[in-house]
Order: sequence, then structure tokens, then C-alpha cells
Amino acid sequence: MKLLIIPDSFKGTMSSAKVCGIIEAEIHTHFPQAQTVSIPVADGGEGSVDAFLTALGGERVTRSVKGPHFEQVDAYYGILPDQKTAVIEMAQAAGLPLAGDRLSPGTTTTYGVGELMAHAISRGCTKLIVGLGGSATNEFGCGAAAAMGVKFFDAQGDSFIPTGETLSKVQRIDTTELSPALEGIEVITMCDIDNPLYGETGAAYVFSPQKGADPQMVRLLDAELRAISETVKRDLSVDVSGLPGAGAAGGMGGGMVAFFGSKLQMGIETVLDVTAFDELLCGADLVITGEGKLDRQSLGGKVVIGVARRAKKQNVPVVALVGDIGDDIEDAYAEGVSAIFSINRVAVPFAEAKLRSREDLALTAGNLMRFLKRIGFPL
Amino acid sequence: MKLLIIPDSFKGTMSSAKVCGIIEAEIHTHFPQAQTVSIPVADGGEGSVDAFLTALGGERVTRSVKGPHFEQVDAYYGILPDQKTAVIEMAQAAGLPLAGDRLSPGTTTTYGVGELMAHAISRGCTKLIVGLGGSATNEFGCGAAAAMGVKFFDAQGDSFIPTGETLSKVQRIDTTELSPALEGIEVITMCDIDNPLYGETGAAYVFSPQKGADPQMVRLLDAELRAISETVKRDLSVDVSGLPGAGAAGGMGGGMVAFFGSKLQMGIETVLDVTAFDELLCGADLVITGEGKLDRQSLGGKVVIGVARRAKKQNVPVVALVGDIGDDIEDAYAEGVSAIFSINRVAVPFAEAKLRSREDLALTAGNLMRFLKRIGFPL
Repeated sequence: MKLLIIPDSFKGTMSSAKVCGIIEAEIHTHFPQAQTVSIPVADGGEGSVDAFLTALGGERVTRSVKGPHFEQVDAYYGILPDQKTAVIEMAQAAGLPLAGDRLSPGTTTTYGVGELMAHAISRGCTKLIVGLGGSATNEFGCGAAAAMGVKFFDAQGDSFIPTGETLSKVQRIDTTELSPALEGIEVITMCDIDNPLYGETGAAYVFSPQKGADPQMVRLLDAELRAISETVKRDLSVDVSGLPGAGAAGGMGGGMVAFFGSKLQMGIETVLDVTAFDELLCGADLVITGEGKLDRQSLGGKVVIGVARRAKKQNVPVVALVGDIGDDIEDAYAEGVSAIFSINRVAVPFAEAKLRSREDLALTAGNLMRFLKRIGFPL
Repeated sequence: MKLLIIPDSFKGTMSSAKVCGIIEAEIHTHFPQAQTVSIPVADGGEGSVDAFLTALGGERVTRSVKGPHFEQVDAYYGILPDQKTAVIEMAQAAGLPLAGDRLSPGTTTTYGVGELMAHAISRGCTKLIVGLGGSATNEFGCGAAAAMGVKFFDAQGDSFIPTGETLSKVQRIDTTELSPALEGIEVITMCDIDNPLYGETGAAYVFSPQKGADPQMVRLLDAELRAISETVKRDLSVDVSGLPGAGAAGGMGGGMVAFFGSKLQMGIETVLDVTAFDELLCGADLVITGEGKLDRQSLGGKVVIGVARRAKKQNVPVVALVGDIGDDIEDAYAEGVSAIFSINRVAVPFAEAKLRSREDLALTAGNLMRFLKRIGFPL
């Protein structure tokens, strides 16, 4: 008997790794012989490296790199067992928690993220998975680009490392050094949001307030992103001005495309690809997925549906264990979800329910296993 | 494929018949060919006759009998298809709603209940199932006994029909007329509580306040029950003073035993017996049961466990669909419950959850059916 466990996190209550652990324990309680594969789904944000290492194994590589304030910080990335794939999360070197009390989206940098990328390449990795999310920055990924060899020149012809409030000072971009470094390197960017680079739904307006920007700073940061977008279009012949996801992580979504020729991809799609999920499905009896709330929004290609679509192609049943089951989830069944069970077991508000989510998930997963065992699953 | 549906009511939200209907509809949506048997569980209270008729078919017989205030009311009982078994609920002739604004546990009667019993016997029924619960009375079932021929005499030697406040006036009980009428008749009393006749946990102290008794009246009613218990012991040689359940329905539990030689039985046991549940289990693939809240209390022989014990003997899987799943329910599995799923699907308090209980039950039952279908059930 082979079961695949591939849940999203339950937002605000349990990480995806925790969810995997609870479900796996229940499976082994009732089916001690069962073969299980746990794949905690990463969305690119904090914890993504650990999620991949949990799912696939591999090596954690720690480096001293520049933090958001150009100070030195210890950051790690993962090298997967193939020795060719590196998983890097920007939160390690440019995350909001690293900025501490000094939130400053105008002056913070992603330089350390580029250092991690460069180190992974120096270790022989040819595929870099870069997770966006949780950033303290708003500088289009210019810092990371600089660390990877891109030169930014100001009006005086001096090279500098642009930050959120100096993007418009860039008069010329030179990628001469970067290009050979990227030879034979594939860069994939995990990015679960589709905000554009600038404008009312762009990086500055939507996300910079939580990074410390006041209204005046928001307007400035937005203008700066608009400016770098023009410069990039001219010098690199890449137009990210209307690209969905370009606004992720302070515009680093756009920078990943512009500087590194990366594609932007939903976290779940990256996880499914990197874990060779389609191969794992061969011979699997059941897939267990889940998330904190299954609703119309999560039917738009998020974890449960992403998993279900793959499983459906190989005719493997999919059970979703979720927190809340929203309305209008009929489409989930058509997408390949066989059944959905809520872990809510008593009628209490979320503030109470979240405190007991672990036990309640365990009980629900346990009941499902008891039931499967009782009716003689698998067939 | 054969499924048995045998849930309790979800207290405060759905009757057991409603629960059956919702689950049955979901079964047929996903398994149009499935054979289903719905058995809404009656507890003896209001709705018990309808529950039996729904489960087994039969005839509803309406009679004009005495109501709680000795007025004439229309009441019905059921004759099951065997033509030998009558199901009578006391609430039809002595129920609290019939008393209207005139709550008066000292003067109300169960006379009409006895009239229904007598009529059922006159129709050829030899097995009377009498459901207790929801009564407006506190008179030990003396009214029902009188209607069936028992004579109660006062100190002057005059015959009268005792009520709650005149039980101590009974000096002599004569069952000469009753005995031949009961020849060959089996009386079974459905009674889901185990309160004794009198005392602090007895009928008067626990239940008479909701029937309109003030504290002084409570003490009086308690003393009256104690008195009739003594008289019964002397004249009928039946001691119900310590009998669990004797305090049901204003002491009618005790009267059923004393006057009619009835046994007191949990509603679920009666339902399981009368529906020949053990025979229904033959060839059944799955039993679906449920109740509003599964907890340590309901593990004491209530519906879910009662059903599970029978099913376990014949190795039929049992799924419980419930409202809340309380703590400490591990024992349920040992008793034969294969799995328990809560219908709570969003984290909201009960006041909100109850308003959506029908849809939520349907969704949960539907998901279970989808899952069974997907994995190719039955084996």
C-alpha cells in the first residue's frame, strides 16, 4: 500500500511539514506496513528550503551573506540529492524578520539572495529554484542581480547597488559578466501571487506598507519600480511592466524574469515537478492533500487542485483534509478530488479551533485510516 | 449494495427522520442502484410513532381520547405491518404541548394513553410499545392504568382517577379487570432516562419544574410519588422504589412496570428489536449512524454504540456522522464504530452551525459516498 501525502500549510495553524507528520503518523498507526511519501508543499516563502529537503532529502548549505541591511547574516539553501538542483528562499537573506525593527523598504537589499545563487552555481548546481515571499525589500531583485555580476550605473557612470529608493538612478545596466555565469543554468522562481510590478495592485501599493512604508514612501517606491521597468525594457529588451507575478517580493518577481530569464511558477507546480510527482503517482493507492481553507479561491490552481489534476490523469483517488470547507467547491470534484473532509469536529469559532487543530487533524486522518482499514482498502 | 441508515436525532437541529432523508438522498445521488433501509431512531418521545412508521410502514390510527386536562383530544398511534404490534407515544395524549398555558403537574392525567393502549388491544395487537417522554404529568401512569381497568379507591371506598397531587389518597388498588385484558399482551416501555421514581434525582425534583411546579409543589409531588410507590408495593407486590427509569415521564416509568408488567428499555434497543435489525444486517455492506454529539455520555449505550455493537457481531462496518465529536471517544472504536466524521465544515459556534446543519450533513454524507464510489466500494 502506497500513500502520497502532499498538503499545503494550514495558514495560521500548521506548517505543511507539520501536517505531513500528523497524517503520516496516523497512517502508520493503522497501516504499519504502508509505504508513505510525505511532500510538504512549499510556496516559496519561509520554510520552502526545509520543505524540499524534507520531501526529497539533500544537503543544507549555510553561508554568511549580506542581509537586508547589507550586514552579514547566516543563511542557508538546499542542494537536492541530484547534486544539480539548488533550492533558495529569499527569506533567508532578505526576509522581513531579518530586518528586525529597522523596516526600510527604500534601502534594503536582496544582495544576499544573489550570493546564495552564485554559491550554488559554484557548487555545480545547474538548476536554481528561488522562492519568493516574506521579503523586507522593494528593489526589483537588483541586489541579487548585482551579486550575480550585473552592473548598474548611475548618471555619473559610477557602478552602485540599487535599492528601493534608488532604482530610478539607474541609467545603464550591463549584464556582460552575468551572461557567462548563467550559461547552462536554469532558474525557476516560485511565486504564488500574481500582482503586477507597479500600480494600484503592484508591489509598492499592496505590500510595502507591511515593510514599513508610509503613504508617501509607497508612492515613491511605486515610481521607482516603474522607472527600473523602463530601464530594463530598454537595456535588456525585457518588458515586465504587465507581467503577473512581477510584483512579488518587492518586484523581485520582475527582476527574476528580467535578469535571469527565469519563469515564474506557482509553488505547487514547482513542487510537483521537482519531486517528479507524476512518477510517484505510479502505483500509488491514495493521495492525501489538504489546506487551511478550501474555497472558490483555492480552486484557482492552488495546492489541492494542482495535486488533484495530476492524480486524476493517473486515476489515483485524492482525499483532501482541510480546515474549513467553503461554499462553491463543487468544481473540486471534477478536478479530481474524490472527497473532502473538514478537521473541524466541534462547533467553535476559529480562535478556539486553531488551538486544537493538531489533535483535530490527527483525529480526522485517523478516522479516515480506520475506515479504509475496516473496508479492506486497498482493493 | 445495501446500506442501513439508523441515526438518532441531532438534538436541536434535525429529527432522526430528517437525518435519514438527507443521508439517503446522498447515497442515491452517488449510488443510484444502492438498496437503502432508513430507520429513524425513536427515543419514546414525540415523533416516536412516526419514526417507527417511517422505518417499517404500517397504519396510523387516530382516536379521540382524554388529553392531559381530561379534555378530548385527537391522538394517534401506529399499528405495524405485522398487525400485532402497536406503537404508542404518551406525548400524543399527555404531552407538554397539549397542556398549553395551563401547566399543572398536580392535576394532569395520562388517561388518554391508556385509552390508546386499550384501543390497540381491541384491534388485536398483542405487543404494545409505549414511548415515554415529553409528558405534562406527574401521576405514575395511574390515569393510563385507570383507562385500562385498574380501580383506585380512596379512604371512603370511592373509586377515582388519581393525579399528581392525589396519589397519596389511594388506599387500595384493584387490578381485577386489568388482568384478563392483559392476557397474552406484551408491553414494552421505551425510556431513555434512568432517574428513580422519587428523591433528589427523581421525577418531581428533576422534571416537574419544567411542567409548571414551583418548589413547594415539587416537594408535594415527590411525596405523592413516594406514597403511591408504597401502596403499589403492598397491593401489587411490585417494588419500583429503586428502579432506574421509574422516574421517567412523571413516574409513569414506574407505573408501566407496576401495572402492566412492562420492561423499561432504551429506545435504541426497542428499535433494533422491532425492526429486526440483526436480520437487516445480513448482507449489509455498511451501516451509517449518527447523533448530534458523540461523547463519553453517548458511549453509555445510546444510539451510535447500540447500533455498533449489533453491527460488530455481524462484521458490518459502521460509520458515524455526527455533529460534535467530543473528547474521550476512543471506546467507540472498540464497540464497533469504524470511523466517525463530524459534519462541522467551518469553524463557527453552534448558534451558526445549527442553521446550516442540513447542508453540512448532506455535504459530509456526500463526500463519504463520493469516496466510497471512487475507491470501488463495496469490496
